[in-house]
Amino acid sequence: MIRAGIINVTGYAGAELARILHRHPEADIACVTGRSAAGRRLGEVFPHLSDVDVVIEEELSNGVDVAFSALPHKASAEKLIPLVEAGVRSVDLSADFRLRDPAEFREWYGVEHPGPERLEDAVYGLPELHRGQVAGARLVGNPGCYPTGAILALAPAVKEGIITPDIIIDGKSGVSGAGRGLSMNTHFSEVNENFKAYSLQGHRHLPEITQELGLLSSAAPRVTFLTHLAPMTRGILNSCYAPLKEDAFPSMRQAQNAITEMYREFYRDEPFVKVTAAPPQTKETWGNNLCLIHPVVDVRTGRLMVISCLDNLVKGAAGQAVQNMNLMMGLPETLGLESLAVYP
Amino acid sequence: MIRAGIINVTGYAGAELARILHRHPEADIACVTGRSAAGRRLGEVFPHLSDVDVVIEEELSNGVDVAFSALPHKASAEKLIPLVEAGVRSVDLSADFRLRDPAEFREWYGVEHPGPERLEDAVYGLPELHRGQVAGARLVGNPGCYPTGAILALAPAVKEGIITPDIIIDGKSGVSGAGRGLSMNTHFSEVNENFKAYSLQGHRHLPEITQELGLLSSAAPRVTFLTHLAPMTRGILNSCYAPLKEDAFPSMRQAQNAITEMYREFYRDEPFVKVTAAPPQTKETWGNNLCLIHPVVDVRTGRLMVISCLDNLVKGAAGQAVQNMNLMMGLPETLGLESLAVYP
Amino acid sequence: MIRAGIINVTGYAGAELARILHRHPEADIACVTGRSAAGRRLGEVFPHLSDVDVVIEEELSNGVDVAFSALPHKASAEKLIPLVEAGVRSVDLSADFRLRDPAEFREWYGVEHPGPERLEDAVYGLPELHRGQVAGARLVGNPGCYPTGAILALAPAVKEGIITPDIIIDGKSGVSGAGRGLSMNTHFSEVNENFKAYSLQGHRHLPEITQELGLLSSAAPRVTFLTHLAPMTRGILNSCYAPLKEDAFPSMRQAQNAITEMYREFYRDEPFVKVTAAPPQTKETWGNNLCLIHPVVDVRTGRLMVISCLDNLVKGAAGQAVQNMNLMMGLPETLGLESLAVYP
Amino acid sequence: MIRAGIINVTGYAGAELARILHRHPEADIACVTGRSAAGRRLGEVFPHLSDVDVVIEEELSNGVDVAFSALPHKASAEKLIPLVEAGVRSVDLSADFRLRDPAEFREWYGVEHPGPERLEDAVYGLPELHRGQVAGARLVGNPGCYPTGAILALAPAVKEGIITPDIIIDGKSGVSGAGRGLSMNTHFSEVNENFKAYSLQGHRHLPEITQELGLLSSAAPRVTFLTHLAPMTRGILNSCYAPLKEDAFPSMRQAQNAITEMYREFYRDEPFVKVTAAPPQTKETWGNNLCLIHPVVDVRTGRLMVISCLDNLVKGAAGQAVQNMNLMMGLPETLGLESLAVYP
Repeated sequence: MIRAGIINVTGYAGAELARILHRHPEADIACVTGRSAAGRRLGEVFPHLSDVDVVIEEELSNGVDVAFSALPHKASAEKLIPLVEAGVRSVDLSADFRLRDPAEFREWYGVEHPGPERLEDAVYGLPELHRGQVAGARLVGNPGCYPTGAILALAPAVKEGIITPDIIIDGKSGVSGAGRGLSMNTHFSEVNENFKAYSLQGHRHLPEITQELGLLSSAAPRVTFLTHLAPMTRGILNSCYAPLKEDAFPSMRQAQNAITEMYREFYRDEPFVKVTAAPPQTKETWGNNLCLIHPVVDVRTGRLMVISCLDNLVKGAAGQAVQNMNLMMGLPETLGLESLAVYP
Repeated sequence: MIRAGIINVTGYAGAELARILHRHPEADIACVTGRSAAGRRLGEVFPHLSDVDVVIEEELSNGVDVAFSALPHKASAEKLIPLVEAGVRSVDLSADFRLRDPAEFREWYGVEHPGPERLEDAVYGLPELHRGQVAGARLVGNPGCYPTGAILALAPAVKEGIITPDIIIDGKSGVSGAGRGLSMNTHFSEVNENFKAYSLQGHRHLPEITQELGLLSSAAPRVTFLTHLAPMTRGILNSCYAPLKEDAFPSMRQAQNAITEMYREFYRDEPFVKVTAAPPQTKETWGNNLCLIHPVVDVRTGRLMVISCLDNLVKGAAGQAVQNMNLMMGLPETLGLESLAVYP
Repeated sequence: MIRAGIINVTGYAGAELARILHRHPEADIACVTGRSAAGRRLGEVFPHLSDVDVVIEEELSNGVDVAFSALPHKASAEKLIPLVEAGVRSVDLSADFRLRDPAEFREWYGVEHPGPERLEDAVYGLPELHRGQVAGARLVGNPGCYPTGAILALAPAVKEGIITPDIIIDGKSGVSGAGRGLSMNTHFSEVNENFKAYSLQGHRHLPEITQELGLLSSAAPRVTFLTHLAPMTRGILNSCYAPLKEDAFPSMRQAQNAITEMYREFYRDEPFVKVTAAPPQTKETWGNNLCLIHPVVDVRTGRLMVISCLDNLVKGAAGQAVQNMNLMMGLPETLGLESLAVYP
Repeated sequence: MIRAGIINVTGYAGAELARILHRHPEADIACVTGRSAAGRRLGEVFPHLSDVDVVIEEELSNGVDVAFSALPHKASAEKLIPLVEAGVRSVDLSADFRLRDPAEFREWYGVEHPGPERLEDAVYGLPELHRGQVAGARLVGNPGCYPTGAILALAPAVKEGIITPDIIIDGKSGVSGAGRGLSMNTHFSEVNENFKAYSLQGHRHLPEITQELGLLSSAAPRVTFLTHLAPMTRGILNSCYAPLKEDAFPSMRQAQNAITEMYREFYRDEPFVKVTAAPPQTKETWGNNLCLIHPVVDVRTGRLMVISCLDNLVKGAAGQAVQNMNLMMGLPETLGLESLAVYP
């Protein structure tokens, strides 16, 4: 059994890791940490986890094989780097090991990267694009929730060169993506029966998206990324738009079929990505590790529209982290991640 | 492997059965039926079940070991009785085999019972009260969602004789309890941001509650049961009230401790009932088979208050049905039902 | 025009006062206060109030005819007492002037009452029970949200002596009742798609209810009051239960008609109380000053059930405060309160 | 007093008309119709309207000065044309008199227009663009909910020629926009805690948008319009994207200020359009007639993003219809529409 540690279990991503790992057939939750709640049983903080028989500690104890960090950026790298250097396979759910360029990190996160020399060892943990590297990695930067859906939605089109890189991503997220910390933005009476855009000056998940799409194409993508808050707990839906290249298809009608086929082919062997026949809904991913993708051609304007859906706490965070762990430890990729969505 | 059939898979209880059975290690979904959707793949009707590789049929094919019926009352008995007679272990999620008295059935459901001679073979499938009988049963009447929570909340107090049987049950349910059929009562814009009482002349789940509590006590319970609709999809919370007998405890303060202890003892070995230290919330049971119970003494008035919570589609329907199947087939009771609640 | 001041406009009750008073034909918002937001325009804090052209001040300036306080308890009395002594008609939305007995205040609020000598001048501002006194009052204690609905639901039955005073009130509230302050209990992801009971050791609104029902009857009421949080922003529904006196009616069937008639008669001339023919819903009061009441006899047990609904921020707070102001200032009671509910 | 009639009052738009007109100081609700509910009092169907003392009739009686139709398309024109010919000022909330080109109507609505000869008399009732024409009109086609917000968001940019007409509109709507008719798409358990795109082959509101933006510019707009359903009752938010013309502004930084100023100037005298300093939220328009607009420059890509918010049943339907009535009848445009949003 793999001995897994969760750093900062007291947020939603940390708790979701515990939920998933508790049912993982090849992993044990050996240790969980969380400053404010240290000394309490996990089930006191999260009653739904009261079957997970573990006491929250201040620091990760010795002897874990894999460490997951759900700390905020900067704090996460500071905690993980010594573990990585001590040989612990690590998956970082913060932003610290997603961007390859420390200058980009500084620009978006407003601090110096605490371990830029570690960036080149880190792998961007989107298995569908970097499976081989993840399998050999000691340190994985687990992708952001929006980028997971947006990159998977656009990767086939970008890689196959059928769109010009004038991309607009209109993202909508449930509130749990904002975490468990209190704020007026997550206060029930403010959010319920309400819809708004936020981060209009640029969301921190933009550079991940640009980086990863840029790797798939010679042309640098020009991405507009606007995020919205929907009155629900879980779920992200990204609506992505880009012009089809004029000569990419003989006709718009043929474009639709060809693109659907191209997407199906691209994700043919992926256990967690489905190209759907009908428009997907976030609820179809509620609690599981799927990303659902649906490409449609707007025949009136010659634009490609791609919808993608996922559960921001599973494929957008903890589930993908466990998927990465499975790859890193040589386990079947889907182990512990087979639950169906809870619907309705 | 047990070959399981689901009759009327196209409602929420039927779909939830499919979700749970698909992950059950000792059962296969051999056949599902549903008139309106016959001929379609299950995943077309319920995309979250697209991994369940089965086509919806008109009628249950031969060769199932266990049949679950999620048909409406009357239709359910008519379909199940021949199966039971053919030796198929059956769990009925309708009301047809819950009440022992066909006259009571007629009074509440407005039709003659289609197979009164089968009632004495049927077992009321609340394992916590009738485990032994369920294990030997050929036909189980799976309890209603409200009664499961209400009976479990009150059983220890009634059985131990600490309350007078002047019981008030104030139930609150999410909307999925009303099923997948369309009605103004389940229309989003009518239900959202709204709260109301319904069935003020008496909810059909009342006679089950009275029957089962009556079996635990010599005194006939006088139950007022009022149901409410809460603007959420899943979850039932019952708030139960009854006067403590005057001489039951030396003092109110002692009553609280003694009652908590009594409840803990009553449910000590139950895998799916937890007596909680803190007031429970419906969300702590979201998607799993738990019933959470919390007894509190109102020291000012000498009344007992008991809160219980469960997921109406799991412990209140499909999960309990699988629990019953496990018992009937000699499997470990918790098999396939170990998922933790999805929270938040 | 009446010059009105709102102390602590930055909570939900204060903002709702501003919303209502802005459209009141005989009142002007002369001054609003709020410590944290002092110096900002009201519309910056509450964009929906940007038409209310007023700057938030530290302290109420001179020259208001009426003061509303939406401060927390204790702070409210401390701020209002000097105003009352200076001749300003005052409506206190906190609990400071609701209870007649300072010992009761101390027991429930854990502090000494800051001005017990003022309690006898204060009027409990439920116009339907104390209209005459409110009209002559200099200081009104505006009732709590739960008590407004619960007292109005039970007053006719208690006053007419048709029930024994063994009363159970099962209250359900939207989240805005918990105010604008941040807490895990009002965090969207914790509350949404969830239902729970809270304040199981006794809610602070209980003594108001007991006090007011006690005034209507020679027998002291024995009230159990349990509160619940529903996943919605506005609305309170109280379900009230009490045994009908055995000899109160010749038969249960006659009881229903007689009680409906009694309730209609009791509230015949009330502009803001309606005895409804159908079970009411909270949404039917969304944004307006109505309290809807529906009495039903549980003929099986001989108990009376009464449902009441209101908007906790309007009839349960700011609307009732304006109703009290209208009475105190000799204006038509309904002035500025005629809006219909916004539905759906 | 103006005698107003509402045809098909039993849907949400019709009921909202009744709510607004009931409080209108210069209009009386003289007659309301609704086939299924004919003969019943309006308050029986909509309890929140029980103060509106009117019985639902089969057909509009004689003697109304203004008729509002909330019928579905085609049926609406058939009912209104005789009224218009009889001299009744008419506002049609259906799509029948929005499009100038009957061929376009046929393409999108799948039926022949029932009165193409009336199209040239009809005015597209967006007062902010066609105020003068509305004032003189006998027949107004009230805009769709999405188009109201989308056109107002884009009109300044299109008219001033600062964008190339490669426009993407990503719309999000609450569920009440789908009306009161029952469907799986509006079933609570399907919609709650869910988010999805719909009408991916093209939403019927697209041709209105194209028509109106086309009138403001010499270049034909190429609009991609994708609609989404958000789990809330009221509210529409449109996120609009278009490339800024390369030479439109000396720099991106200057562009932001210039565009904000241009938008403020464009809507300077509009009572119901506000260009907001902060990103707007749908809830800030809950129940009132405002459209909030917020233009932002995406300086990284040189694109303009414009967010607009409104209440789909008020500015997106009934409120705008009353605004049109005010103009047609020579009343102050804001009469009866001054309510502030109900928040939270």
